[in-house]
Amino acid sequence: MDTYADKLSFSSDYMEGAHPFIMTRLSDTNLLKSQGYGTDSFSQSARDKIRAACGCPDGEVHFLMGGTQTNATVINAVLKSYQGVVAPNSGHISVHEAGAIEFGGHKVLTLPQKLGKITADDIQELLSDYQNDENHDHMVMPGMVYLSHPTEYGTLYSLEELRSISQVCRKNGLPLYLDGARLAYALACPENDVTLHDLAELCDVFYMGGTKCGALFGEAVVIPQKNFIPHFFTIMKQHGALLAKGRLLGIQFDVLFTDDLYLHIGEPAIIAAERIKEALLYQGYQLYFESPTNQLFVVMENTRIAKLTQKVELGFWEKYDDTHTVVRFATSWATNKEDVEKLLKILAE
Amino acid sequence: MDTYADKLSFSSDYMEGAHPFIMTRLSDTNLLKSQGYGTDSFSQSARDKIRAACGCPDGEVHFLMGGTQTNATVINAVLKSYQGVVAPNSGHISVHEAGAIEFGGHKVLTLPQKLGKITADDIQELLSDYQNDENHDHMVMPGMVYLSHPTEYGTLYSLEELRSISQVCRKNGLPLYLDGARLAYALACPENDVTLHDLAELCDVFYMGGTKCGALFGEAVVIPQKNFIPHFFTIMKQHGALLAKGRLLGIQFDVLFTDDLYLHIGEPAIIAAERIKEALLYQGYQLYFESPTNQLFVVMENTRIAKLTQKVELGFWEKYDDTHTVVRFATSWATNKEDVEKLLKILAE
Amino acid sequence: MDTYADKLSFSSDYMEGAHPFIMTRLSDTNLLKSQGYGTDSFSQSARDKIRAACGCPDGEVHFLMGGTQTNATVINAVLKSYQGVVAPNSGHISVHEAGAIEFGGHKVLTLPQKLGKITADDIQELLSDYQNDENHDHMVMPGMVYLSHPTEYGTLYSLEELRSISQVCRKNGLPLYLDGARLAYALACPENDVTLHDLAELCDVFYMGGTKCGALFGEAVVIPQKNFIPHFFTIMKQHGALLAKGRLLGIQFDVLFTDDLYLHIGEPAIIAAERIKEALLYQGYQLYFESPTNQLFVVMENTRIAKLTQKVELGFWEKYDDTHTVVRFATSWATNKEDVEKLLKILAE
Amino acid sequence: MDTYADKLSFSSDYMEGAHPFIMTRLSDTNLLKSQGYGTDSFSQSARDKIRAACGCPDGEVHFLMGGTQTNATVINAVLKSYQGVVAPNSGHISVHEAGAIEFGGHKVLTLPQKLGKITADDIQELLSDYQNDENHDHMVMPGMVYLSHPTEYGTLYSLEELRSISQVCRKNGLPLYLDGARLAYALACPENDVTLHDLAELCDVFYMGGTKCGALFGEAVVIPQKNFIPHFFTIMKQHGALLAKGRLLGIQFDVLFTDDLYLHIGEPAIIAAERIKEALLYQGYQLYFESPTNQLFVVMENTRIAKLTQKVELGFWEKYDDTHTVVRFATSWATNKEDVEKLLKILAE
Repeated sequence: MDTYADKLSFSSDYMEGAHPFIMTRLSDTNLLKSQGYGTDSFSQSARDKIRAACGCPDGEVHFLMGGTQTNATVINAVLKSYQGVVAPNSGHISVHEAGAIEFGGHKVLTLPQKLGKITADDIQELLSDYQNDENHDHMVMPGMVYLSHPTEYGTLYSLEELRSISQVCRKNGLPLYLDGARLAYALACPENDVTLHDLAELCDVFYMGGTKCGALFGEAVVIPQKNFIPHFFTIMKQHGALLAKGRLLGIQFDVLFTDDLYLHIGEPAIIAAERIKEALLYQGYQLYFESPTNQLFVVMENTRIAKLTQKVELGFWEKYDDTHTVVRFATSWATNKEDVEKLLKILAE
Repeated sequence: MDTYADKLSFSSDYMEGAHPFIMTRLSDTNLLKSQGYGTDSFSQSARDKIRAACGCPDGEVHFLMGGTQTNATVINAVLKSYQGVVAPNSGHISVHEAGAIEFGGHKVLTLPQKLGKITADDIQELLSDYQNDENHDHMVMPGMVYLSHPTEYGTLYSLEELRSISQVCRKNGLPLYLDGARLAYALACPENDVTLHDLAELCDVFYMGGTKCGALFGEAVVIPQKNFIPHFFTIMKQHGALLAKGRLLGIQFDVLFTDDLYLHIGEPAIIAAERIKEALLYQGYQLYFESPTNQLFVVMENTRIAKLTQKVELGFWEKYDDTHTVVRFATSWATNKEDVEKLLKILAE
Repeated sequence: MDTYADKLSFSSDYMEGAHPFIMTRLSDTNLLKSQGYGTDSFSQSARDKIRAACGCPDGEVHFLMGGTQTNATVINAVLKSYQGVVAPNSGHISVHEAGAIEFGGHKVLTLPQKLGKITADDIQELLSDYQNDENHDHMVMPGMVYLSHPTEYGTLYSLEELRSISQVCRKNGLPLYLDGARLAYALACPENDVTLHDLAELCDVFYMGGTKCGALFGEAVVIPQKNFIPHFFTIMKQHGALLAKGRLLGIQFDVLFTDDLYLHIGEPAIIAAERIKEALLYQGYQLYFESPTNQLFVVMENTRIAKLTQKVELGFWEKYDDTHTVVRFATSWATNKEDVEKLLKILAE
Repeated sequence: MDTYADKLSFSSDYMEGAHPFIMTRLSDTNLLKSQGYGTDSFSQSARDKIRAACGCPDGEVHFLMGGTQTNATVINAVLKSYQGVVAPNSGHISVHEAGAIEFGGHKVLTLPQKLGKITADDIQELLSDYQNDENHDHMVMPGMVYLSHPTEYGTLYSLEELRSISQVCRKNGLPLYLDGARLAYALACPENDVTLHDLAELCDVFYMGGTKCGALFGEAVVIPQKNFIPHFFTIMKQHGALLAKGRLLGIQFDVLFTDDLYLHIGEPAIIAAERIKEALLYQGYQLYFESPTNQLFVVMENTRIAKLTQKVELGFWEKYDDTHTVVRFATSWATNKEDVEKLLKILAE
C-alpha cells in the first residue's frame, strides 16, 4: 500500500512517473491553450511522427488512456455482434481485465498458450474446426485475433511466427490485433526481430504502450489502413476512452517519438533484466519461462521468498507447488544500476 | 485544430494543463516508486483529505480518468439490469456521451429541463406515472437520478432544491447521483449555497471534477456510505476506468485538497465571467440563460459572431434563429486578467 | 387475471388462440418428423409463399417468436455499435419493451409523434441537426428508422407518406424498418393503400405479425434484399430468438399465406371496430385518435368506465384529465358479431 | 432440410410436435379468451401444479419459450455486472448458444468436464484459486454455477453429487442453476435418483424443459424461494422472453403436470435408447460415453456412417479420429417401437 522511499522494488514496470523529457515538456507547455479531444497540434505532431516511425503515412493514430480500455475499445470496434476474439488463454483480455470484453458483448475464444504465445497452426485449426462443425451457426464466430508482444510472460514472437499468423488471418479474413503494452521492451531487446514497420504491415490494428514504457499514462493505437474502423472517435467516446485534454497524450507520445526515444527507452530494463537473470541462474534458480525482455519469472522456495521480500518487493505470479511459488522480477525504463547492484547483493546473501 | 499561441480563447474550460502546484508536485514525485491501481500512499492521502472535506469519514473515494467514463461506470454500477437513469434532457449523459449509458444496457429516462435543471416534483411525477401505469412491468423502471451541478448551462441548484430532490429520491428508494464535472466553479460562486458536506449528506454518489477544475485529468467519485456499491474497484476495471499509475490521480487530488485549493481554484473564473457578463449586457447582448458560474450563453447575430471569432475562439452552442446563434464564453481557473481585458476591448469595438 | 368464459372482452387483440385453419394444420402434422431451427419443409414453403406475396423472390424470410424479441433482434443486427434507432416517442420500442433496445447497447432517438406517426421531414430534420451539430462525434449517430404500421394508436401511414420516408432514408443511407405487429389489420382496412409489395420495395426490413393476426405466436421478418443482414441466423440464436421446432412457425405462416388468408384475416376486426366506432360517436363519445384499424381510443368519464367495466373488459391507455381516461377498444380476427351486438347494447344503456 | 415422411430419424429429440394430450387441450381451449403475458388462469393452474410437484408451495414459476433464451434470461438476472457463470466446458451455454451469455455482458468461466459433468471439488478449487489470487479484483468473479441434468452427453448427476455441489455453492454464497432442458428423460430413467423435490431443495433456480419433453415449445423456470430474483417479469420482457399469449405455455405445462405426465413422458425414450444401446454393443460398437438417458454417443467408422445414413438420420457430434466420428442416436417421448425395430434391423445388416 506504500510509496517506496527506501525499499527496493522489482514488482512491476509502472511504479514511477514518466521519463524526464516528458515531464519537462508537460511543464513547458502547461499553460498553452489547446483544443480538446485530440484535435490539438501536439497530438497532430505525435501522430505524424508515429506514422513515419511505422511506415504507414496514411494510417490512423488514436491515443487512449490505458491498456484494458484500449483492448475493450478496439475489440468492440472491430467485432461484429455475433463474433468473438481469439486469444491465448494467458492473454490479458482472457484473464486480467475483469470481463471487459464480455461487458462489450463478446466471447474470448481461448487457445492454449506455449510460452505465452499461440501459433498460426493453432489459429487455423480453431477456424477449421469452427467451419467444419455442422452446428457452427449456433456458435460464436471467430472474428479477430488478439496477441501481445511481448507476451504477458515476457516472451517474443519472431518475425517469422508473426508473419505466419498474419497470413492465416488474412487468408481467413480475420483482423489481427496486437497488444503492445510493453512494446518498447521488445524493441529494445536484441532477440527481437519485429520492427514497427513489420507491425504496420502485418497487423490490422496494434497499440504501442505508453503507460509501461515511459509515459505517465496512455497508449497509441495504430490503424495502418485508414478507415479500417469507421467512426473510431465516437466509439472511443462511447467507451469513456476519449481524454478531454487530449494534448496530454499528444505531448507524451510526441516526446516518445522524437529522436527515436521509444525505440531505446527500454534498453536499461533489458540490460538490468539480463544481469538479474544471470545472477539468478548463477544462484541456481529455475526460470519458469525463458523470457528475453523485462520480466523474469522464477520458481522460488516459499521460505526463500519470505526472506527476500523483507528487502525487495516482487510480483507474485502463481503457485508452483506446495513449497514453491513463481515470482516475477520486473525491470523498467526507470530501473537504475544502483538498485540492480543492491538486488544482486541481496540475492547473493 | 491548433494550439493557441496568440489568439484569445474562451471556448472551453479544459484548454490548459494543470494548476502549477500540481505540475510541481508531479515533477517532484516523478521518480518515487509506488504501487499501482490507487493503492499508493498519495491516493490514500488524497482520499483522507476528501473524506474530511466532505465530512464523511467512512465514505469511499475512487479516482477515475474522465467525466463520461465516470458517469458510465457509476451508473452501470448502481442500476439493476432492468432499470434506467432519470436525467434532464439536457444532461451530459442524455446528449453528449455517444450513448455510453446505453452501451452499458440502460435507458436514460429524460425529464424536460428548466435552465438545465429538474425539480423534485418532476421526479415525483415521473415516478408516480410509472407506478400508476398498468403496464409498468413492461417499461424501464426508474432506478436512480442523475443531476449535474453546475448544470451543462452553468446554472446551480439551490440547497433547498437539492434537498427536495434528495427527499423525493430517498422516499422512493432512488439513489441520487450528482455529476460535479465543474463543481469547483459552483464552490467558488457567491450564489452557491451547496457545500461539500451537503453533497455528502444528500447524494448517494457524486463526483468532483478534476479535468475542468485545475487537474491534468481525473475525477474523484465520493460514495458517502461505504459499500453502497460493492466491488466498485472491479467494476472500474471492467469499464477500463482503472488507471495503472493511480498515483497520478492521487497526487493531483491531494494537491487540490490541500489548503482548500479546490474550494477556491474556480474564483478567477467566476470573477472573469462576471466581468464579461457585465460587458455583454452593457453592449446590449441577450443572455440565453442567466447563469452564475463560469459559462455564459449569449444570443448573438451571426454576422457579429463572424467578426468576433476572427479574434476570439468561442464555443458554439446551438442555432437560435436564422440570423442568431447561441455562443458560449467559458472561463476557467487559468483565465488571466489580461485576456479578459483584451476580450472586453474587442467586445467594445 | 382470469380466463373469460362469460364476460365480454375488448381489451386486446391477442386473447384467443389461433385461426382454426392453423390449429387443424398443427394437429394434422403433429407427429411428422422434421429438422429443427427452421430448416424444415413447412418453413421453406411458408418462406416461398411470403416471398411471392411480397414480390421479392430473392428476399430472406425469418420466423421469430414475438414482437419485442423481433424488434430487439433486428435492430441490434442492423445498427453499428455507435448508432441509435430513430422512432416516434410513442413507438413500442420507445416505451413498452422494458429497455430491450438499450439492453442491446443502443439508444432510441425519439421524434414527437402525430397520431402515432412521424414524417419524412421530421427524420430529415433530425439528421440535419445531427450532421450540423459541431459535437456530433460525441453523440449517438442515427443509424436506422423504426416505424409501426398500423401504429400503436391504430393509425396508418399512407403510401405517399411511407414513400417519402423511404426516400429520406435512402438518401441518407439509413435503413428503414417497419414493425407490422398488426399488419393484417392494415391490409384488411379500406383506408390502407400500402401493399406487401410496397413494403418490400420501401423497407429494408419489415415484419408481419402473427401473434396478433391469427397465429398462436410468431412474427415473419422479411429482408427484401438477400444478405442485407449477414449471419442473421446466428444473431437470432444469440438473442434467444431461434425456435428449436421452427416448424411451428413455418406451419402457421404457411397457413396464413395460403389462399391470401393473411390479407383477409383482419376483416372481421375492421368491420367490428367500425360498428363500435359508430355507436360510440352516436353516444357522443370523443375519440382520442381517429384511427381506422382495429383499435379505438376513446376519452371516457371515469364514472362511466367504472360501470362499463363491470360488463366489458377494456384496455386502459392513459389518464386524460382528472375525471377522464383514455380507454382502448380492441377487436381482432376472432371477434364475433354476437359479442359486438352485446357491446353495443351495453353502450346504449 | 426436409420433413421426414418416410426416412427413419434418430437425429434429435425435438422432431415432432407435442404430446397428443397437449394438442387436444390447445384445440379445446382455442377460442376462449384470456389475458396476456402469463396472467391467465391456465398459467396459474400450471404454476400451482408445478409448485406442488416440486414441493415448493411459495416458489415462483415462470414460463419461457426456449432453452437458450431461458439460460440467458436467468443468468443475466442472477449475476451482478462484474460476475461470471461457472459451467462445464461442454455446457450448452459454453458452446452452442452463439454467445448469448456474453451478449448479456458476462463471461462463462469453464471447468473441464468428465462425462459432461463437473464436481463440487472442481467448483471449490476454482473459487479458492480466485480468492487466493492476489489479482482477483482484476478478474471476473464467479457469481453462480450452471449445470445441466441430464447433461449435454446424456449423463446424470447422482443425488449425492448434486448435494455436494449445492453445499459448496451455499457455503460460498453462489447461486446454483440447473438446466433441465431434457429433465423428463432423467425423471424417466431408472438410474436417476434426483427428484423434483430434490431440485427445489438444492437449486436456487432450475428449469424443466418442455421443448424436448413433449411440448410444442416452452420451458418452466422454478425459483423455489420467492423473490430470489426481483422483477423477473420485467427482465423476461427486456430479453424478449415474455410470450404475449402466455396461455400457450400455461396450457402445455398444465397438461404436462396433470396426472404426473411429465414424470413418465420420457419412458418410451429410455426404453428405446436401452434397446438401441444393447444392439449397438452387441454389434461391437464403442460407446463414446456411458449415458443412461435418451442420447447415445457412438464411435463409428466413417464408411459405416455413410451407409447407415442412407437409411437413418443421425446427429453428428464430433470427429473422433481420421476414420471415425462420434454420432448421436437420440430417442424421444414420441419414438415408437416400429421405428426402433426398423433401426435394429438396419444396424444388424
